[in-house]
Amino acid sequence: MSERIPSKTDILEAHKVIKPFIKHTPVLTSKLLDEMFNNNLYFKCENFQNAGSFKSRGAVNAIMNLSNEETKYGVATHSSGNFAQSLARAAKILNIEAYIVMPKNAPKVKVNAVKEYGGKITFCEPNLKAREETLAMLISNTGATELHPYDDYAIIAGQGTATLELCRDVPELDMILCPVGGGGLISGAALSADYFGHNIQVIGCEPDGADDAYKSYLAGEIIPSINPNTIADGLLTSLGKRNFPIIMSYVKEIVTVSEDSIIKAMKLIYERMKIIIEPSSAVTLAALIENKVKAKGSNIGLIISGGNVDLSKLPF
Amino acid sequence: MSERIPSKTDILEAHKVIKPFIKHTPVLTSKLLDEMFNNNLYFKCENFQNAGSFKSRGAVNAIMNLSNEETKYGVATHSSGNFAQSLARAAKILNIEAYIVMPKNAPKVKVNAVKEYGGKITFCEPNLKAREETLAMLISNTGATELHPYDDYAIIAGQGTATLELCRDVPELDMILCPVGGGGLISGAALSADYFGHNIQVIGCEPDGADDAYKSYLAGEIIPSINPNTIADGLLTSLGKRNFPIIMSYVKEIVTVSEDSIIKAMKLIYERMKIIIEPSSAVTLAALIENKVKAKGSNIGLIISGGNVDLSKLPF
Repeated sequence: MSERIPSKTDILEAHKVIKPFIKHTPVLTSKLLDEMFNNNLYFKCENFQNAGSFKSRGAVNAIMNLSNEETKYGVATHSSGNFAQSLARAAKILNIEAYIVMPKNAPKVKVNAVKEYGGKITFCEPNLKAREETLAMLISNTGATELHPYDDYAIIAGQGTATLELCRDVPELDMILCPVGGGGLISGAALSADYFGHNIQVIGCEPDGADDAYKSYLAGEIIPSINPNTIADGLLTSLGKRNFPIIMSYVKEIVTVSEDSIIKAMKLIYERMKIIIEPSSAVTLAALIENKVKAKGSNIGLIISGGNVDLSKLPF
Repeated sequence: MSERIPSKTDILEAHKVIKPFIKHTPVLTSKLLDEMFNNNLYFKCENFQNAGSFKSRGAVNAIMNLSNEETKYGVATHSSGNFAQSLARAAKILNIEAYIVMPKNAPKVKVNAVKEYGGKITFCEPNLKAREETLAMLISNTGATELHPYDDYAIIAGQGTATLELCRDVPELDMILCPVGGGGLISGAALSADYFGHNIQVIGCEPDGADDAYKSYLAGEIIPSINPNTIADGLLTSLGKRNFPIIMSYVKEIVTVSEDSIIKAMKLIYERMKIIIEPSSAVTLAALIENKVKAKGSNIGLIISGGNVDLSKLPF
């Protein structure tokens, strides 16, 4: 894929290419939540996606966009989160190597998931410098192609396919609420909402404790997170340089929410929707709990980003 | 609805009648579970049904089949479980009274759910005699029509609509695994599998600690449960007299599973499927864990009956 913001055709093409390897996830609703929030809520359930999160969409698309030469040497990334699992899975399906650099204190459940998918793990010290150095060494040894979890146009196009499906399944959407971490999901969502929706407002939702996108959006330049702290562990990263301009152009607003609201929203979704989500996915409903979104009687899509959570450590 | 085993037309009619008030629930899959069990598993998610279980289907159908005269005086039942919530909800939608007799030690969460739906609760001592006497008194005072949670043909036809949807959404099913409690769900499932499927074997799954259906099926006569004991609290009831003949004719086999397997299956579904189910819904996957079902490379439907569970008391 070329080095430019994904077009409508790029996202349609991504969807066609990844379709055999990902799920068309369902959109769930709850009358009780609709009544509680005075809007019609449509939950796009990427927690049901293969490997447990939307990251599988971008990972498959990025790998499908490698050249034949590149596929010989595999792909590499550093990640302790959902991207590691999704990339390992995508590489396995397409029969290429995936080299994953993980901090040596990464949760065992995540390490095991990557191993199950056949990913080759190299452990390093748990800091960004060690992760980047280990990855650079690995790449120079193997010739693997580095894939960034979100600062990559093929990844953005892949993540955009979730919202493409949402727009097709619920054509009457007025608004989409989307979590913001590094910006891969929301930049894809905002492009797709523009391309495939009818005047949909896309609003980013972010924890108070990791509000770099909120600050960056207001400042008009990337302001990285410093010591972010939130239960929403998928949203700790700072915005990527390819994601930020898309967010500036296509996202209507970024709102922030408290930890308390994230936990309340998470509990509400477990109890009422009967689905398992990770804390990062609860920031959207948390924005409605905090009344941060001006909407009444509207059709609102909420993107549930993933379901990889340790059930023995639920915060409620 | 007339007093006979529901026909194909009856179930199609039930589906038409209840459609505006129930959800067409999704069918979910997991490649990891497919590989683990060497079959293709299709989970029909009635845990996402309104009021949290399949019981809403039968409750709405039974109320829609009341005469105009009957609707004036409302409906009544005794239940401490999912049927109470579903009947209260159905009655509220159709704007009639629902009188629910509940044991005074019923879990607060269930009492509150019935209240939220506007059900009128009468509490009684926690034994069957008190429940039946209180219900009889209530009916003589109010003129309400008693609705039995499962021993009722309109209820059976309503529950059968879940499997009607499943057969339409997954036409290539070879087998359906279904929990057995009083027999309302499985008798409807077995009829629909016969009417709308192509040679589908329906197998009932039951806890070792509440194996009245297993014993009854072998004996050819209803053998009630004596002191049943299982975490699958929706499966404690004994078979109804209208359900039993349908099960004898249309169900291929009943298998039983241990508590340990139920808990293992429940955990596996939470972790892999990312959905919240009640223990009663885990008996089907438990049957696969225990290798009680002879199948390989088959397309197997598993009916997930409900998702009403106390998340603070998960058994894992």
